[in-house]
Amino acid sequence: MRILLVNPNMTDAMTRSMTQVARDLAGEDAEIVPLTATRGFPYIASRAEAQISGANVLEMISEHHRSVDAVIVAAFGDPGLVAARELFDLPVVGMAEAAVMTAAMLGERFSVVTFSPHMARWYTDCVRLTGLEPRFTGVRCPAEAPASVDNVAETLRDDLVGLVGAATAEDGADVVILGGAPLAGLAQQICDDAPGILIDPVAAATAQAMSLVRLAPNYRRRVGRPAAKSSSGLSRSLSTLIAGETP
Amino acid sequence: MRILLVNPNMTDAMTRSMTQVARDLAGEDAEIVPLTATRGFPYIASRAEAQISGANVLEMISEHHRSVDAVIVAAFGDPGLVAARELFDLPVVGMAEAAVMTAAMLGERFSVVTFSPHMARWYTDCVRLTGLEPRFTGVRCPAEAPASVDNVAETLRDDLVGLVGAATAEDGADVVILGGAPLAGLAQQICDDAPGILIDPVAAATAQAMSLVRLAPNYRRRVGRPAAKSSSGLSRSLSTLIAGETP
Amino acid sequence: MRILLVNPNMTDAMTRSMTQVARDLAGEDAEIVPLTATRGFPYIASRAEAQISGANVLEMISEHHRSVDAVIVAAFGDPGLVAARELFDLPVVGMAEAAVMTAAMLGERFSVVTFSPHMARWYTDCVRLTGLEPRFTGVRCPAEAPASVDNVAETLRDDLVGLVGAATAEDGADVVILGGAPLAGLAQQICDDAPGILIDPVAAATAQAMSLVRLAPNYRRRVGRPAAKSSSGLSRSLSTLIAGETP
Amino acid sequence: MRILLVNPNMTDAMTRSMTQVARDLAGEDAEIVPLTATRGFPYIASRAEAQISGANVLEMISEHHRSVDAVIVAAFGDPGLVAARELFDLPVVGMAEAAVMTAAMLGERFSVVTFSPHMARWYTDCVRLTGLEPRFTGVRCPAEAPASVDNVAETLRDDLVGLVGAATAEDGADVVILGGAPLAGLAQQICDDAPGILIDPVAAATAQAMSLVRLAPNYRRRVGRPAAKSSSGLSRSLSTLIAGETP
Amino acid sequence: MRILLVNPNMTDAMTRSMTQVARDLAGEDAEIVPLTATRGFPYIASRAEAQISGANVLEMISEHHRSVDAVIVAAFGDPGLVAARELFDLPVVGMAEAAVMTAAMLGERFSVVTFSPHMARWYTDCVRLTGLEPRFTGVRCPAEAPASVDNVAETLRDDLVGLVGAATAEDGADVVILGGAPLAGLAQQICDDAPGILIDPVAAATAQAMSLVRLAPNYRRRVGRPAAKSSSGLSRSLSTLIAGETP
Amino acid sequence: MRILLVNPNMTDAMTRSMTQVARDLAGEDAEIVPLTATRGFPYIASRAEAQISGANVLEMISEHHRSVDAVIVAAFGDPGLVAARELFDLPVVGMAEAAVMTAAMLGERFSVVTFSPHMARWYTDCVRLTGLEPRFTGVRCPAEAPASVDNVAETLRDDLVGLVGAATAEDGADVVILGGAPLAGLAQQICDDAPGILIDPVAAATAQAMSLVRLAPNYRRRVGRPAAKSSSGLSRSLSTLIAGETP
Repeated sequence: MRILLVNPNMTDAMTRSMTQVARDLAGEDAEIVPLTATRGFPYIASRAEAQISGANVLEMISEHHRSVDAVIVAAFGDPGLVAARELFDLPVVGMAEAAVMTAAMLGERFSVVTFSPHMARWYTDCVRLTGLEPRFTGVRCPAEAPASVDNVAETLRDDLVGLVGAATAEDGADVVILGGAPLAGLAQQICDDAPGILIDPVAAATAQAMSLVRLAPNYRRRVGRPAAKSSSGLSRSLSTLIAGETP
Repeated sequence: MRILLVNPNMTDAMTRSMTQVARDLAGEDAEIVPLTATRGFPYIASRAEAQISGANVLEMISEHHRSVDAVIVAAFGDPGLVAARELFDLPVVGMAEAAVMTAAMLGERFSVVTFSPHMARWYTDCVRLTGLEPRFTGVRCPAEAPASVDNVAETLRDDLVGLVGAATAEDGADVVILGGAPLAGLAQQICDDAPGILIDPVAAATAQAMSLVRLAPNYRRRVGRPAAKSSSGLSRSLSTLIAGETP
Repeated sequence: MRILLVNPNMTDAMTRSMTQVARDLAGEDAEIVPLTATRGFPYIASRAEAQISGANVLEMISEHHRSVDAVIVAAFGDPGLVAARELFDLPVVGMAEAAVMTAAMLGERFSVVTFSPHMARWYTDCVRLTGLEPRFTGVRCPAEAPASVDNVAETLRDDLVGLVGAATAEDGADVVILGGAPLAGLAQQICDDAPGILIDPVAAATAQAMSLVRLAPNYRRRVGRPAAKSSSGLSRSLSTLIAGETP
Repeated sequence: MRILLVNPNMTDAMTRSMTQVARDLAGEDAEIVPLTATRGFPYIASRAEAQISGANVLEMISEHHRSVDAVIVAAFGDPGLVAARELFDLPVVGMAEAAVMTAAMLGERFSVVTFSPHMARWYTDCVRLTGLEPRFTGVRCPAEAPASVDNVAETLRDDLVGLVGAATAEDGADVVILGGAPLAGLAQQICDDAPGILIDPVAAATAQAMSLVRLAPNYRRRVGRPAAKSSSGLSRSLSTLIAGETP
Repeated sequence: MRILLVNPNMTDAMTRSMTQVARDLAGEDAEIVPLTATRGFPYIASRAEAQISGANVLEMISEHHRSVDAVIVAAFGDPGLVAARELFDLPVVGMAEAAVMTAAMLGERFSVVTFSPHMARWYTDCVRLTGLEPRFTGVRCPAEAPASVDNVAETLRDDLVGLVGAATAEDGADVVILGGAPLAGLAQQICDDAPGILIDPVAAATAQAMSLVRLAPNYRRRVGRPAAKSSSGLSRSLSTLIAGETP
Repeated sequence: MRILLVNPNMTDAMTRSMTQVARDLAGEDAEIVPLTATRGFPYIASRAEAQISGANVLEMISEHHRSVDAVIVAAFGDPGLVAARELFDLPVVGMAEAAVMTAAMLGERFSVVTFSPHMARWYTDCVRLTGLEPRFTGVRCPAEAPASVDNVAETLRDDLVGLVGAATAEDGADVVILGGAPLAGLAQQICDDAPGILIDPVAAATAQAMSLVRLAPNYRRRVGRPAAKSSSGLSRSLSTLIAGETP
């Protein structure tokens, strides 16, 4: 199977590290097709940026959906996820949602640990939107934003281990999600140092995408697809799809 | 005061009828500046379409925000509303949210009546996102979608009066919102025929925008503004704003 | 338009300061008609006191509702608000509810800051009753009650600025409501010193009352009015109204 | 022990039938002291009426609280209950709340069946205020209000049995509360004809009041009592109590 | 009346102290029939242990239900409670649920104080399952687990008084439940030292069991009883009951 | 990898059909190890039966957990799931929970369709316990229970297709879970006849178990494991495990 990994951030280095995590997880069983946004922002960190990048995600998927079996939206805020599920007849997995659903199957309660207070509220909103808030114990993050998101997994390693400790000991989380694309791969590195069960959202999303492909959901009779419609200003592939035309 | 009425739908006729309702409400006290989307869709009817049009709304506002006192996002699903509040230092009002908050000050429970089953679920989601679901009694709509959205306020008039009756008598609503841009102006026409207190979302949004301008909220020290950031593929005015540069 | 500002507290000085805030907001566009309770308590601070004063509020409104266009219940706990909406055919606005609904249109999450721990739980209950708890980040107040409610806006000024800071920085509020009649007028004085967007509940209630009058809701067909009924021990104007008789 | 049964309605016949149910339940173990309101309404049926009668309830209790061991507020909407708990240092039980808590100990889910659609929404609100909504399956009532509340237990007997059937079979209730003072005593009469476990709220409230007296809660160190305060327009006994003076 | 007090823990000393509290509460009015588990664990402290012991509880009740009027499941986590209500035609009361429902009739908000952090999460889950979470302010417990559960009521007395203080002063509880079988009898000993109204769950469960017997619920027409069914590996009395056979 | 499929029901035929679905899904990638309960009930259909069978599930797992990589609890009510996660250091997946989490990644809202009204309430409770109720549109089932659970997938095929239609068209579900072991394998057979995306819980649980094994969660530092403890009456393997002894 082929899985499209769409990075809505414009940063190639993030795509590379996330692709590596996805490939490590998938092994021989799935081909990971990475795609980095060419429009939008270096790193999405607000709902305004997610509104814009979510629209870009739809265009990115529209160019590849016929040649892949599933899609991963590879940014923790899941920009464009609900919209993509309306438009495309294949499984579309969000990094945050997949991490959350996976966490809920590994323990009773879960937390999110991330690298900057700027992400805390948006990540809280993301969990709320999944509907699984009853099992969520909150976001833990450093008090100050790091000077740069580059290398935060390395520079903040000890702080993050401490935050995982607080999430399990004080908040009562069994499972801790390490949220945010810059932390891709960290879970595996610190899992013997930090308490609880750790989740790498890229790995979780990849595993879930493979799981959904394996289930082979039947889209022929699915409901809720928007009616065919004309549009203006969209990319050719997306406007063709929305118009209900054969590409 | 000047209020920008942004119609995210590409249909001029809707802009005209909504502008008329807004001007009737505002009288001499506010100037309504209408703006119709030049990209997107004739009429937004799905979350995919809202994702795309919401991004367009940000560009539309970015071109005018310095010359107006408040903004109305004039589509019932409030595309781009949360994102716009992050970016711009002036009151931004959504048609659905303003209708819902107004309804809650006129009665204990409120319903939404609309013209098509295609809108029911999205409108339900919109009310949920406002946070006021505890006072919401649900959406009432005809069983079948109309052939065209043109003139639905006229052709479905009797059906809609009946749905308002069901919303008040069976669902227990005190206040009924007539949702969707094609129903702009209808509330005033049928308010002696239908039970309960009716709300026209365009009128409610205009009244709320004027109310917020009157309150003169101080944006100088506001929190939650995204950090300045480079971008690609955005309109010049929006990218300048997001970059934190002087236009 | 004429707006009745009912102060359920028996303290004239509070009525005067709230009337001043309301008049500053309304300018030439509305006449504010102040009314101070002649029964009840100097300052309502418990649910028992609100039960009693809420009944008084109904009598106060019953003497003036035919000569005004809207009513403000000018105490933060909104005593008698739901009951008043059942009885009277004009918009009735509560100070807490109006502040909360306004806050939700200016930001994603809101807090209440007040001057005494005695009010914290009641104010929390008030927000819950509005139904908007999902967007509420809680009440912040000093650890100790002040010796007197007189002049708390002045004597506690710095403390209150600090509490607004905590509400925005620690609780994640975008908007902060300064709750309680003794804080009327404070928002405007400290809005350049305290972070976030501040709301003065009297100003918000006045703006909302004006907004609802402007919308001209049609009460002729409204539902939920209690059946005509005899009574004993009520003021003449209220018993006449409840009996369904012409005054 | 002595239990004050306060009927906030002005109808002696209701007091008599409720007192009979309470005495049948209490037998020799408690003395029931009935008290009928001399102000207010023949039968409370709206939140406005409950606001007013709830204030009267406080005055009624203030005249007897030193000579009884517990109080029953004997109207299904529990007017004045929360306020009474703040003021008086003895158990105060509401008919609705006691019925709801009792129902939740006899089965997983409970319903309320009542005699008129006018009561349905208020009773729903009452259950919400108890906090036990997650186990509530809703109110069932006849489609039309009866011409008179006199004798509804007799004239509507068959309809009410049918509604209990619908509550258990369609709504999934295990336990059904027969709500409203005019239905006092009915549960025992129809419990062999109607499915499920039936609850008479007067009986439940009496049993709960006796149960709380037996537990002998210690009020000496209780929290949340309002500060002593002057007042105007209250009965002598209530104003003395609120002023913190010895009667 | 006769009340079966089933201790799902295998510790006789706990049964004795709980029986003493129950007998002190019941006086002459009810006979308490104690029963200690002969299988399971010395002291249930996890959901795994509750799963197993809850099954044992059903067998214990099945041997005595025909000779008693009500049953108390005397462990704070209420193991087997919902299952027991399905199977047996008499009131079955859980220690946690009875304490919670009682607390809600004595004050607006309640807390649980217990002796070990190991119990905190399970007790939180217990309160959630009662459905009364909206009035729950959380669990307070020492930071460290005690070396032994023997005598914790004595050795931790001062700590527990301090936790009750925090629950009332910081969390806003009016009523505090002292949770866990080892704390049976403590409430009465410390109620003059600790603020708020204290609840002993054994006393509350006994009072509620007596209250439900007094109400004489009619089980002849109750709904939700599982269909008769064969089984394997159950005790004779339980398998006979489940098979719908006469014993 | 090896996956233990524990059927808590004593019916071999169910184990065979579920094993077939699991093997079809897993193909070469996982070995399915089926295990049928030798104690308990032919088919679990109540919470009492789940209490007992859930305890049996723990014993069944304790005999095999060292030789497998994950466990499926193969009954829709997930008996013993939470308890099993506390005790065992490997992924344990419940059929209901896995179906629900999977459904939430394939669409916005999901429904459960089952074969008997007897299961409706329990299945509703199951979904509530997963925490995903906000995205749940309810259970649909035939009005009458079938005479036998044998062959219901065949005899009720058309009814079930109709119920799926109602779940999508009337309740707004995008995804429909076919709940209950007797419906194993049906989803694939009717997916071209019924609207929406169908989920077979056995397939979903198998896919999720494989997905969790692939993620290789680290149990070495996990939290929430109950303390070592003596016990009585348990199987040797379970008591050894709970005692913290080497088997």
